[in-house]
Amino acid sequence: MIIGVPKEIRPGEERVALTPANIAALLKKHDVQILVETGAGVAAGFTDGQYEAAGAKLADRDQIFSSAQVILQVQTPGSNTTNGQDDLDKMKSGQFLIGMTDPLANPGFAQQLAQSNVTGIALELVPRITRAQAMDVLSSMAMIAGYKCVLLAATTANRMFPMNMTAAGTLNASRVFVMGAGVAGLQACATAKRLGAVVEAYDVRPAAREQILSVGAKPVELDLDTGEAEGSGGYAKAQGEDFLKRQRELMTDVIKDMDVVITTAAVPGAKSPILVTADMVKAMKQGSVIVDLAAERGGNCELTQSGKTVVEHGVTIIGPENVPSSVPHHASQMFGKNMENLLNLLLNDQGELALDFEDQIVADTVISHNGDVPHTRLRELLGLP
Amino acid sequence: MIIGVPKEIRPGEERVALTPANIAALLKKHDVQILVETGAGVAAGFTDGQYEAAGAKLADRDQIFSSAQVILQVQTPGSNTTNGQDDLDKMKSGQFLIGMTDPLANPGFAQQLAQSNVTGIALELVPRITRAQAMDVLSSMAMIAGYKCVLLAATTANRMFPMNMTAAGTLNASRVFVMGAGVAGLQACATAKRLGAVVEAYDVRPAAREQILSVGAKPVELDLDTGEAEGSGGYAKAQGEDFLKRQRELMTDVIKDMDVVITTAAVPGAKSPILVTADMVKAMKQGSVIVDLAAERGGNCELTQSGKTVVEHGVTIIGPENVPSSVPHHASQMFGKNMENLLNLLLNDQGELALDFEDQIVADTVISHNGDVPHTRLRELLGLP
Repeated sequence: MIIGVPKEIRPGEERVALTPANIAALLKKHDVQILVETGAGVAAGFTDGQYEAAGAKLADRDQIFSSAQVILQVQTPGSNTTNGQDDLDKMKSGQFLIGMTDPLANPGFAQQLAQSNVTGIALELVPRITRAQAMDVLSSMAMIAGYKCVLLAATTANRMFPMNMTAAGTLNASRVFVMGAGVAGLQACATAKRLGAVVEAYDVRPAAREQILSVGAKPVELDLDTGEAEGSGGYAKAQGEDFLKRQRELMTDVIKDMDVVITTAAVPGAKSPILVTADMVKAMKQGSVIVDLAAERGGNCELTQSGKTVVEHGVTIIGPENVPSSVPHHASQMFGKNMENLLNLLLNDQGELALDFEDQIVADTVISHNGDVPHTRLRELLGLP
Repeated sequence: MIIGVPKEIRPGEERVALTPANIAALLKKHDVQILVETGAGVAAGFTDGQYEAAGAKLADRDQIFSSAQVILQVQTPGSNTTNGQDDLDKMKSGQFLIGMTDPLANPGFAQQLAQSNVTGIALELVPRITRAQAMDVLSSMAMIAGYKCVLLAATTANRMFPMNMTAAGTLNASRVFVMGAGVAGLQACATAKRLGAVVEAYDVRPAAREQILSVGAKPVELDLDTGEAEGSGGYAKAQGEDFLKRQRELMTDVIKDMDVVITTAAVPGAKSPILVTADMVKAMKQGSVIVDLAAERGGNCELTQSGKTVVEHGVTIIGPENVPSSVPHHASQMFGKNMENLLNLLLNDQGELALDFEDQIVADTVISHNGDVPHTRLRELLGLP
């Protein structure tokens, strides 16, 4: 069987779906061929020579789409709504497409694939079970994003993060506040702590308290009823408007003393909740910084503009898009390892992709197959019986 | 006496010469008035209200230049050759001007001040003696620059700095190499170390070895004769071309394995030595990063363009200008404290500036006085008897 890795085409996307190391590992285990588009890894720091040395064959884009039975992408046309359609037109009946498809926000993509009789596997739907951890791209990319957003904040801040006692007096450490203590939030806490900041964090899930302490940050507690804040799969559950209003009131007092606020509260497939209102921004100090990791889903801050850095009431608000792609080498390494692990599960002894729908990982991630959409949740979203 | 703090006008300059805290401290000790230009501290995160609360009077620029006997600037027209001339035209006979003047690169400024009978005090010339440490702006600003350049590198790098062991495999720590272990270089080592990188450093001065170890980095040793590398005042001495050539050969081998190279080898008043040649850049890994803190003096890397970020042979080379100004709050806090300490030395009981040329700090820093240039080194540079 032939597996194809085209170059990513979404504007700004610098990752690649497999690294040379992943390819060497796959070729050792499975009787497959792997085609990589010329230059596919360059933006992530992997040269064509390294791919060839690992056993891949270099090919052009059309060759890959016409000859590979499985196409691997970081951003499939499902998540790349900018210029992904070109690739969708190249797909053929019977092919497999594995990558990120933004399934809950763009369920219609599953239908498009089904119409072309392409089997689509959405990496975002990998279940949060122990066996699937090594394939969980949301976690691995959130880790990168949590690290990088702290650097964006520190680079923009008008002060240093660590405390310094010098001949020219004492400089206070910056106060960093992280909202949302999922993978990204905890990594943000750890990174800000490394840099010497005084770090506090908040999450509606009571279980987050221990996790926040474990990365050296101080949990902020608000007087709120948080009994049912954790939804299935360990993600934060969407909350009612009354709850969010009270949360905002108490939060204003916390936020006004901070130098940096990092928000990471994204609910999969849904618009992000507003945690930082315009009034809270107004109450903040001149020169403080907000990094809104939920910018792409509408943002956790009312004044965030996705993909832009704006200054409002003297506060710089950064709304970065596709943060993992800005650390493309390590992000590709993790993404590629996730992909390699998934392929190890799916490839049978003959080197063919064999889907066992009794396996939760398969059942949860396959969004189109045999000209239909087998996925229960997507069928609901699409209004299919 | 009236002391005036105008807003900085050099493009991109966000610092301010005194903070509200410095002003409160000075007014408590001395019988002086302090005028601050409206909005002077805003870019550094200090509001007009904070200045007024500290006892300063707000004024417009012309008022300050016409009524203050002492003008305090971060960048005087000596270092601000872009649009500083405007201010020079506003200065009056008998006034004092204290700030950075770029004295060794722009000695002619001392003559300009002398012609206007303005007494100029250049903060860059504060001697490196224990008693003057608290006034040493080169050290305090180098500390800021050393911190910030690591953030620039980390934000640009295609990989994370710390090692990470995750469900998606192990990510190696980045390797950071710091060239020049003065204040900036040592702070760069410490900051990269904080972020989790593997840090190595090099300096021609044998004494630097202990200092490099003290901030958690590994000293790189080259097989070179370095007996006379330390000049007066603890700064690196300019080296001969043979020495530098051999240094470059040995260095190529070191550099090719690095993910990040930070160069900080500036010789006061002279063009910076080339430590990283185009050939060395060519030998580096795809996607690695160089930050050249000596960019403004020509750069330590042959391919650096001052004020720009360029990509050459797959390596991103950042040549930042005026780095301390990009952390304006803390930089102003340190600069202001240096300035406050100097004023405490210079102000007498009547709240007047009294220059005691027997004091080394005065003798070393006054570049113009009584219509003449009293400074020995500047007289030499200017060819004056």
